[in-house]
Amino acid sequence: MSALPARPLRAGIVGGGQGAFIGAVHRLAAELDGEAHVVAGALSSRADIAEQSARAWNLSRWYADYRQMASEERSRPDGIDFVIVATPNHLHHPVASVFLESGIHVICDKPLAHRLEDAEALAQLAARGPALFALTHNYSGYPLVRQARELVRAGALGELRKVLVEYQQDWLMAPLERAGNRQAEWRTDPQRAGAGGCVSDIGTHAAHLTEFVTGESIVGVCADLATVVAGRRLDDDACILMRLSGGARGTLVCSQIACGEDNDLNIRLYGSKAGLEWRQQAPNTLVFKPAGAPWQYLRAAHGYLSEATRRGSRIPPGHPEGYLEAFANLYRSFISDIRTVMAGDPPRRDYPSAADGVRGLRFVDAAVRSSARGAQWESL
Amino acid sequence: MSALPARPLRAGIVGGGQGAFIGAVHRLAAELDGEAHVVAGALSSRADIAEQSARAWNLSRWYADYRQMASEERSRPDGIDFVIVATPNHLHHPVASVFLESGIHVICDKPLAHRLEDAEALAQLAARGPALFALTHNYSGYPLVRQARELVRAGALGELRKVLVEYQQDWLMAPLERAGNRQAEWRTDPQRAGAGGCVSDIGTHAAHLTEFVTGESIVGVCADLATVVAGRRLDDDACILMRLSGGARGTLVCSQIACGEDNDLNIRLYGSKAGLEWRQQAPNTLVFKPAGAPWQYLRAAHGYLSEATRRGSRIPPGHPEGYLEAFANLYRSFISDIRTVMAGDPPRRDYPSAADGVRGLRFVDAAVRSSARGAQWESL
Amino acid sequence: MSALPARPLRAGIVGGGQGAFIGAVHRLAAELDGEAHVVAGALSSRADIAEQSARAWNLSRWYADYRQMASEERSRPDGIDFVIVATPNHLHHPVASVFLESGIHVICDKPLAHRLEDAEALAQLAARGPALFALTHNYSGYPLVRQARELVRAGALGELRKVLVEYQQDWLMAPLERAGNRQAEWRTDPQRAGAGGCVSDIGTHAAHLTEFVTGESIVGVCADLATVVAGRRLDDDACILMRLSGGARGTLVCSQIACGEDNDLNIRLYGSKAGLEWRQQAPNTLVFKPAGAPWQYLRAAHGYLSEATRRGSRIPPGHPEGYLEAFANLYRSFISDIRTVMAGDPPRRDYPSAADGVRGLRFVDAAVRSSARGAQWESL
Amino acid sequence: MSALPARPLRAGIVGGGQGAFIGAVHRLAAELDGEAHVVAGALSSRADIAEQSARAWNLSRWYADYRQMASEERSRPDGIDFVIVATPNHLHHPVASVFLESGIHVICDKPLAHRLEDAEALAQLAARGPALFALTHNYSGYPLVRQARELVRAGALGELRKVLVEYQQDWLMAPLERAGNRQAEWRTDPQRAGAGGCVSDIGTHAAHLTEFVTGESIVGVCADLATVVAGRRLDDDACILMRLSGGARGTLVCSQIACGEDNDLNIRLYGSKAGLEWRQQAPNTLVFKPAGAPWQYLRAAHGYLSEATRRGSRIPPGHPEGYLEAFANLYRSFISDIRTVMAGDPPRRDYPSAADGVRGLRFVDAAVRSSARGAQWESL
Repeated sequence: MSALPARPLRAGIVGGGQGAFIGAVHRLAAELDGEAHVVAGALSSRADIAEQSARAWNLSRWYADYRQMASEERSRPDGIDFVIVATPNHLHHPVASVFLESGIHVICDKPLAHRLEDAEALAQLAARGPALFALTHNYSGYPLVRQARELVRAGALGELRKVLVEYQQDWLMAPLERAGNRQAEWRTDPQRAGAGGCVSDIGTHAAHLTEFVTGESIVGVCADLATVVAGRRLDDDACILMRLSGGARGTLVCSQIACGEDNDLNIRLYGSKAGLEWRQQAPNTLVFKPAGAPWQYLRAAHGYLSEATRRGSRIPPGHPEGYLEAFANLYRSFISDIRTVMAGDPPRRDYPSAADGVRGLRFVDAAVRSSARGAQWESL
Repeated sequence: MSALPARPLRAGIVGGGQGAFIGAVHRLAAELDGEAHVVAGALSSRADIAEQSARAWNLSRWYADYRQMASEERSRPDGIDFVIVATPNHLHHPVASVFLESGIHVICDKPLAHRLEDAEALAQLAARGPALFALTHNYSGYPLVRQARELVRAGALGELRKVLVEYQQDWLMAPLERAGNRQAEWRTDPQRAGAGGCVSDIGTHAAHLTEFVTGESIVGVCADLATVVAGRRLDDDACILMRLSGGARGTLVCSQIACGEDNDLNIRLYGSKAGLEWRQQAPNTLVFKPAGAPWQYLRAAHGYLSEATRRGSRIPPGHPEGYLEAFANLYRSFISDIRTVMAGDPPRRDYPSAADGVRGLRFVDAAVRSSARGAQWESL
Repeated sequence: MSALPARPLRAGIVGGGQGAFIGAVHRLAAELDGEAHVVAGALSSRADIAEQSARAWNLSRWYADYRQMASEERSRPDGIDFVIVATPNHLHHPVASVFLESGIHVICDKPLAHRLEDAEALAQLAARGPALFALTHNYSGYPLVRQARELVRAGALGELRKVLVEYQQDWLMAPLERAGNRQAEWRTDPQRAGAGGCVSDIGTHAAHLTEFVTGESIVGVCADLATVVAGRRLDDDACILMRLSGGARGTLVCSQIACGEDNDLNIRLYGSKAGLEWRQQAPNTLVFKPAGAPWQYLRAAHGYLSEATRRGSRIPPGHPEGYLEAFANLYRSFISDIRTVMAGDPPRRDYPSAADGVRGLRFVDAAVRSSARGAQWESL
Repeated sequence: MSALPARPLRAGIVGGGQGAFIGAVHRLAAELDGEAHVVAGALSSRADIAEQSARAWNLSRWYADYRQMASEERSRPDGIDFVIVATPNHLHHPVASVFLESGIHVICDKPLAHRLEDAEALAQLAARGPALFALTHNYSGYPLVRQARELVRAGALGELRKVLVEYQQDWLMAPLERAGNRQAEWRTDPQRAGAGGCVSDIGTHAAHLTEFVTGESIVGVCADLATVVAGRRLDDDACILMRLSGGARGTLVCSQIACGEDNDLNIRLYGSKAGLEWRQQAPNTLVFKPAGAPWQYLRAAHGYLSEATRRGSRIPPGHPEGYLEAFANLYRSFISDIRTVMAGDPPRRDYPSAADGVRGLRFVDAAVRSSARGAQWESL
């Protein structure tokens, strides 16, 4: 279309330095399609680590202070187009705010903040524009999750009756936070993680997946949070009853002490006409269960999927794609939207938003409140 | 060992006539090992159906009245040794009582009764003896369910932390009770089924499986029962938080409107050392998930299982056994126990008991009560 | 229909005494539906074992000599209606012949004989009648195998292009025949098993399954048989190229040294319109793979299966049935056919026949010949 | 370690322009870790397409003639460090030769050439050095394939007895080559693809996987190749018996007409101590089947895998990785080796080589010859 190819966008990253798995994921995902390069980073507040991490990634520029980064990058002719926020939760709000206020687009890890009020403030700021904001609820990037949403939207399930969603891990089944594991430290620290532990870290993924696929809102929860590992300061396991805005009921179960499960996110939906099942650990298959007929196994990249779903696959059927490719699908939408606004057109905002993030915090707050009151229904 | 082979036992059956799937299952299971023959039946209270059903099964004697059956069979030299109670729930108590009082051993379908008070009365009667009583929580007859129990008992899971149990069906997703389906009629009728619908019919199986495998009791529930199909008089779906006596938490989810699921009973346990997973629809496999090590797939009849588990398999590894064989394992234990008391020895009672049945009714009552109070914790 | 219920048939059994797994299977399968009782047996040629085995099974009459059994049972007013032949292969012909000549119906284990000439002689005798003859290629009794055959017949696959069939076990991966295992002894002894080892014991099952499902004949084989365990006198592993009468090609692979496989029989078919896959270790599912559309998982007992397929299931969907039930489906057809001829009607012969058995021996002979000639194509 | 970070390498690509799936895969894989950027391309011999394709990828430089590209890039100060050869088979030899002779490292798609003599010539050239050469048998890049190889090497399987390898697709089940599909055109054209169709395109992957995992050579094949789609000029289906150098036997089955299979590459190994199974469509699991013990499911990225295996995973356990990541693992080894020789050290050559490619061509030739002679054993 255009006479000259669009240049790859320039990205910066805050947080996610050495030892932080999610920083590397963001970078791989951001760069996967060759549409962006991470060129600058504030990878640590300690200058030595910040420099070392930046060198390990071949970055052009490094900072120890994200405010300085925002200020300098804004002024450079070759400054970054967007920033990736991959810090612990409590820094999402201050970091994202500085960049938004500098007019730099922001893509931020979830949850949106460690406190609901911060989340709301950030969402207000993001709504004001003009900088774009995306929240990396990355599981919504899987092609078959998108196909699931389309099937629900198209009425293939009929009236939605029941939803079962789970996210089970075991990485916190021992007190790693007392054994020097940095990620475990902040994730179990209320000052940095917020009021929820497991329910915030992965429960919000399950909640977002539910709302994304169903197109409905979780309107009430009745939660039983547990702190299984003695001495831990936040929940590491949760069993939650939930109600959706359309009347469906269900459970949301998450755990970081479920021995033997590494990352088992899955969702099952039951309607008046059909059921659906998707499991992150076999992400290229979606099981469709029509009433009174054989189950159908829909597999990624096949011609019988919707065109939008197929665009989420980079390679032909039978060539497994995974977590990184799904994560990169969020980046692809976000980068494409940046190009859209660069061209002067209105953004499509077809990726998880700050408003979704506020809903996530409300979910966490309601779950924590419900559990504290002995599993009483709480509205979101 | 004995000089003469023991003769096959003579069994009678009440209920379960034409059209009732569970009657046929009981008969197949009772006779599978050639240790018992069903010779007499009161298969219906309508004489013509009772006779017709008895002829279809080649029974020697038929009755339209179970009281008459108890009285006559007790007096015959070739009278039945035990009776199978396969009626709707509300008749379990009266029928079983008459036979127990006649000194005839009773094996009864679950739940034990349609009301807790009946269940308690029946359990008292059963406890008095000398006639034996068994309750067909048949899923405990699967060899790998027994292996699971042994692993828990042996401490292989460490401290039990979390239990997720499910029983999903879809056969009541339409109002069959208004379309002439006899089983649907009584199962959705509070007069005959009791206060619980789905939670009683299959929720009790899930509850029993939980207690059987863990060796612990469900001590509290927080339940959200739903009547999804309009006009139905009992619940057809349930989402329940639960607590076990040892401190573990979890969920019990059951449904008869889960579109596409035919009979998906499954249980997952998570301890401080390992996890376990068993699914009724792949019943010959038990997944053991030790911390930090590969999952192990234990399969039926293999030499690495315990001797007791292996006795529950009739054929070598790789030759699938299923529901009938598991059901027959309960009959095998019960028949063996009848032979034991015939020989003057004390019974072993290694099968689900009337006391288990009382616990089942308490579970149903607590779930119904909890849900009626808006999902409030109720003790069992 | 009839005024009086038909009495259960009386069965006898030759072979299959203590320690022989297959004898117990035949008895369980024969009696499963209550349509027959095994009342007499020649379970061993050693009188003491014959008596002991008969007592263990509560048989009414026992013999040490099968000829005496045939002669006496023929003369008794309550003599057996049919006999089960569960001996080692080399005795199938003499035993079955004696009973057929006595006018007693015969159901015989596979392969039909240990030598092709015996098989042909027995098939000629069986063809003469009036006694019926059935061969227990039991895997054809699985409901979903029958559904597969119906789909092929109905043209759902289009033109058949490729067939892959496997039967993998590991029970002979060590020299059990030198460790006192009776079954291993005769199965590895050419005098009793015939010219083929693995290829005869389980290869014939795979070959029959292929012909049963496709409705075509295997017309040529190019075989590489191996004797993996040193000192063994027959093959314990086979890799075979095959051609079917309709032009399809494929492989037939079987092994008794495939470490870790207990009884993995499976078949995959590929046509011009669709593919099909069935696995004995998940026998209640049939995968249908239409071109350009999602895979469909057909599951046993569901209403979308053919009526004939559904008749092969005894219990509702989701209640797993297995090997015994499938085996019993062969007995059900055979017993029903005996009743048919008892009523003076012509038999339906809807079960594997002696002619199928001759084809099995031809398959074994061709495979052995092909392998001996260095994997040269041989016709059947 | 080093004072300055190594710069990303500069790569060029020949072939793989618009519409050619494999070109995009190479680029994604080459760039995934940020260690290389594709900057130059000869994506088509037609100048307009070459330019258009290069623009679509934001390349800095484009060529319509690969010879010109080699010559110019060699002379530039910022010339490419290595070239990716992603052309049809018949161009691998001429293209790779020109770059090797220019001293530019080459990574080339498989098979090595379309004729054995070309393959041998190319291998001789590659052996001469100093430019490095890698062949993208990408399936060897999966972490669990590498774990499988290590288990075999470590003796965990004991003596290898049997190998079953399959590669099933269906994309050529209709005559796409007559419907304008470019890839189908050249892949079914002997002038461009060589003497083998399916057996060359994907059979060589299966053969390489076998040799890679077992550490043995395929020494003989007995093949039945078929051309199922009428009018096609090369085989589209193959059933092959094989023998390995250590004495193991097995089958290699591949097809491009296996209706319903999209990309089902799988391998099973059976030894005297254990079996192994890996399937490309669930690539993050390796099943280990020790004799007389439960199967073990080894999953990617877990601590119980070897350190070398774990290095092949970019993200933690439970986050699925797939085809691109495995492909990128080959690039990672190749790029690392380029850096090694840049630093003056001897190369490690820990990736598939030109010699492997010659073995692939010998496999194709032997299979084609064997089949032409009516499935006669041919040595490689």
